[in-house]
This record gives sequence, structure tokens and C-alpha cells, in this order.
Amino acid sequence: MFAEFITILDLVGVAVFAATGGLVASRKEMDLIGFGMMATFTGIGGGTLRDIILDRPVFWINDQRYLLVCLAIAVLLFFFASRVQKRYVMLIWADAAGLAAFAVMGAEIARESGVSPLVAIILGMATATFGGLARDLVAGEIPLLLKQEVYATAALLSAATYIAAITYLDTPRLNAACLAIAIGFGLRAGAITFGWSLPRYRQRAGRIYK
Amino acid sequence: MFAEFITILDLVGVAVFAATGGLVASRKEMDLIGFGMMATFTGIGGGTLRDIILDRPVFWINDQRYLLVCLAIAVLLFFFASRVQKRYVMLIWADAAGLAAFAVMGAEIARESGVSPLVAIILGMATATFGGLARDLVAGEIPLLLKQEVYATAALLSAATYIAAITYLDTPRLNAACLAIAIGFGLRAGAITFGWSLPRYRQRAGRIYK
Amino acid sequence: MFAEFITILDLVGVAVFAATGGLVASRKEMDLIGFGMMATFTGIGGGTLRDIILDRPVFWINDQRYLLVCLAIAVLLFFFASRVQKRYVMLIWADAAGLAAFAVMGAEIARESGVSPLVAIILGMATATFGGLARDLVAGEIPLLLKQEVYATAALLSAATYIAAITYLDTPRLNAACLAIAIGFGLRAGAITFGWSLPRYRQRAGRIYK
Repeated sequence: MFAEFITILDLVGVAVFAATGGLVASRKEMDLIGFGMMATFTGIGGGTLRDIILDRPVFWINDQRYLLVCLAIAVLLFFFASRVQKRYVMLIWADAAGLAAFAVMGAEIARESGVSPLVAIILGMATATFGGLARDLVAGEIPLLLKQEVYATAALLSAATYIAAITYLDTPRLNAACLAIAIGFGLRAGAITFGWSLPRYRQRAGRIYK
Repeated sequence: MFAEFITILDLVGVAVFAATGGLVASRKEMDLIGFGMMATFTGIGGGTLRDIILDRPVFWINDQRYLLVCLAIAVLLFFFASRVQKRYVMLIWADAAGLAAFAVMGAEIARESGVSPLVAIILGMATATFGGLARDLVAGEIPLLLKQEVYATAALLSAATYIAAITYLDTPRLNAACLAIAIGFGLRAGAITFGWSLPRYRQRAGRIYK
Repeated sequence: MFAEFITILDLVGVAVFAATGGLVASRKEMDLIGFGMMATFTGIGGGTLRDIILDRPVFWINDQRYLLVCLAIAVLLFFFASRVQKRYVMLIWADAAGLAAFAVMGAEIARESGVSPLVAIILGMATATFGGLARDLVAGEIPLLLKQEVYATAALLSAATYIAAITYLDTPRLNAACLAIAIGFGLRAGAITFGWSLPRYRQRAGRIYK
């Protein structure tokens, strides 16, 4: 049951990140192959990094569904994205959903590999943020990660909620996962809607700055 | 015989990508060490990613020839690149040759590891495109990958031709490899010469765009 | 004794690179989580790449101290960096110290894995330069690696001195490491202070340049 939930979560996360990759490809007016590449490496990038660091078999090597999902999303977006109003808004929200789902799933997979809670939380964040970071770097856009609003913090909160609930509160995993996704997505949703941000570091006046 | 062919293909691919790294270093007016670094990670980057994802030993760890080839190319280019007219043109053509060779070689190595045809094709593309992508990102240039002309498509066509010929037509591997390289290189050559491109995604007028 | 020295060197290298990540975060006026992310992946990035290429367990997976050091540095810098005059200068010097320490440590760990001297030197350089390169790419700054002054050369000199002293001169490892760090740091210090640079490749006049 929980294994199925994680698999579904994984496919959904891959699909929504793939969609964000395809939407960036549409902003850059790429061709169909460009859509395929952006969708694929945004969709599978974070999980690939996680698996390589944990020295597990990379998840899409022996299960073609992940690549097929990415490619299908790319084709759909190439032909139909122009029918969607407010594509940038869609990108932002799909990214938010993927972020929360991947943070929990990355943390769970790391935890199962036997790492400490802190390492599991960090790997959850890395899984959630790496695909989008690579997408933005390759496309030459300012990474969402570096913008004003709460972003990585939402991934951190999702991963930390999940690991804390499992480890210290003995919450059943399914409940912990749903709770953690809701909290992370909710925080990011608030950030998107209301512009929530954490206090930022402020430069002093008069500093020497080269 | 085929194993030797693959090794030679591999060394040639590494050498031509190393040359493109050195040529970008010359455009940025780097020093000799900069040439060495750009040549090395462009030359070995794609294959390194492929081996890490397949969890094989990274190919240049136990065979110094690859590093020596990259370093030799870097030294040659540092001292003699200025004698070459039209260096950017040379870069483009060397990159095209490396692209076709690496796509086939990456697909073959992935196939031997027992992955499905689709995964082998994707890993062939990744082998062929990653080194050049890293080269362009580090140097702050617009990735060739994102430009108008057919690029990743040529890598895809090479890898797919090779895998299809082997898997479905029972073509001998050497013939399949030569054919696939010729087709991929030919497509990219047409793109360079005639500006071939696939239809691109077009934005609608009046879209909301943040 | 030497194992302890290497561990200390490692923690110091991680700490100073983490500090450079935090300082870049301060230049970008990020929030606390941004400081944590920049510090962490700058601190552990180079060693992570080294361990993945060597197919060793990634060093911070089973030893939480590395992550804790990065996070502590990030918190300290977030609250107190503004008290430091000349933060860019501090960044440059911390980076120089990390560069020399990581080059030696990366080369030593590669050597212990049984690779050839040339491969060990290259992996030492990669360990030393990758974290800072990723830091600069993510933050959208011109990589220190590409600037005029001697940089990668200092990492190369450190790694090569260490490997040469161990392999050909039978120098005790501790002495070789101290010597190699001093030489690499000294070279980079000279470059920072006096603007030392290697001769750069010069374009010809009248070249065709697209």
C-alpha cells in the first residue's frame, strides 16, 4: 500500500517537474526534441542525483515508465501548451506540487537506505530542488531557488515534517507523507499567493564591495 | 574487432570534444591550465555521466590514455590554435563529429549493460550532449543545444538508428555503428550548412507572460 | 595520526568552502535557507563528485559532522557576516585555503583508491575546484576559475606536489601534505596579492569570429 503510494507520488512528481521543463522549453520556443530534453532532465534530475549519492540503481534505468511519462508530457505540451492561459502561473504551481512530493519521496528513499535523519532531510531537499535548478541553469533563467519567495524552505519543511513525524512521533508513513506534502505545498502556495518570504540578509551601508 | 572499433571511436570522440573545449578556452583567452581543464571536462564529461548513471567504473579512471589525449589536445591548441582560420567553424564541425560518435558509443555501452532500447537511446543522447552543455555553461556561452539548428536531434537520430538497426534488423554492430554515425553527422552537417531546423514552438499573441 | 590529519584537513576544507558559499549568499542577499544551501553544496560539492567518480561511499552520508559544519557556518555568516569588513576579500582568501587543502586531500583519497598518479592529480584538482565552480554558476557569478589570476593552477600544483613527493621522493605523507598545501596556497596568495597570472592565449588580429 505505502509502496504503491510512493510509486504514484514518484510518477506524479516526475510528471509535474517534466511539465515545468516543457513550459520553460515553450518560453524559449524550442523544437520538439528540446521539449523532450528539458522535460526529461527536469523530471528525473533530482531523483538521479539522489540515487547516485546513495549509490542505489538510478530509478529510471530499469523502469521505462519514467522516461515515457516525461516524453509524453513533452509532446502534449509542445502541441497544446499554447491553449493554456497563464503558462508561467501553471509552471509555478506545478513546480510547487513537484517540490513537496519530491521532498517527501526523496527523504523516504534516503531514510530506507539507512542514513541519519539529518542526511535524509538534506537528500529530500536535494531531490526536490536539483531538477528545477538544472532546468533554470540550462535555460539561462534566474533559478526559482534564488528568487525572493520561500522556495527551498518549503522543500525543507516537507522533508523535515515527514522525517520528524516518522522518527519521533511514530506516525504511520502514509499519514506522515500526506501531512508533510500538505504543509510544504501550503507554505509554497502562500509564498506564491502572498509573496511570503523569510527575512533576507541585508548588506551594511558603506561596505567595501568589489 | 568491434571492441577495437568502439575504443577508437571513443578516443576520437574524446579528442574532438576536447578540441571543442580548447577552442572555447581560446575564445575566452584562458591560460594553459584553463585550456587543460576545458578540454578535459568537455572530452570526458558525457561518458563520465553515462558511466555514473549505469554504475559502471568511470572509463578514464583505469585508462590514462583518455586524460593524456585531452591534455595533449589542450597543449596543441594553446600553442597552435591561432594558426587556424575560422576557429568557430572548426569548433562547430568537431562538435558535430563528436556528437555522432558519442551518441552511438554511449548507446552501445548502455545496451551492453542490459538496459531497454529506450533507455539506451536516451543515455546515448546524454553521453553526446552533456560534455558540450557543461562546456558552454561553464564558459557562459549560450549552449549549442539551445540554438535554432538541429543539434540534440542529430544525437537522437544517431543513437536511435544504431539501437534500431541492432535490435530490430539484426544488423552487424560495426555496420550499424558506421551507418548511425553517418546519418547523425549528415543531419548535423545539413543543419550547419543549410540552417536546417525543426518547427519550433510558437507563442500565441496576447499571452500573459510574467 | 595521518588519518586524523586528513580528517581535520577535510573538515577545515569543508568549513572554508562552506564559508565562501555563505559569503556568496550574502552578496545575493539570500535568506537563511539560501545561506544553508549555498554553504552546504559549496562545502561538500567537490568531495561528492570525487567520491562518485571513484565509486566510494559519499563522505558525508555516514558522517553527519560535515553537514553540521556547513549548516553552522551558514547560520554564523547569516547573522554576523555584516560585521566583517571586506567580505569579498575574506571570500577570496577562504577559497584559497580550501583550494589547497582539498587538492591535497582529493589526491590522497584518489591515490588510496589505487588510481594512477595522473588520475589522482586530476581528481585532486576536480575536488578542489568543483564546489566553487558550482557555487559561482548557481549564483550567476563569473567563476573564479575563469578569472585572470592563477587559480586552478594552484590546485594543480598542490595536488601534483603531493603526489610527486609521495610517489617519487618517498616523502612521509604528513610532510608531503603540509608542503603541498603551503606551495599551492602560496601560489594562490601571490596571485591574489600581486595579480600573478600565466601567459594567456591571445587572439590574432583579424580573425574570423562569429
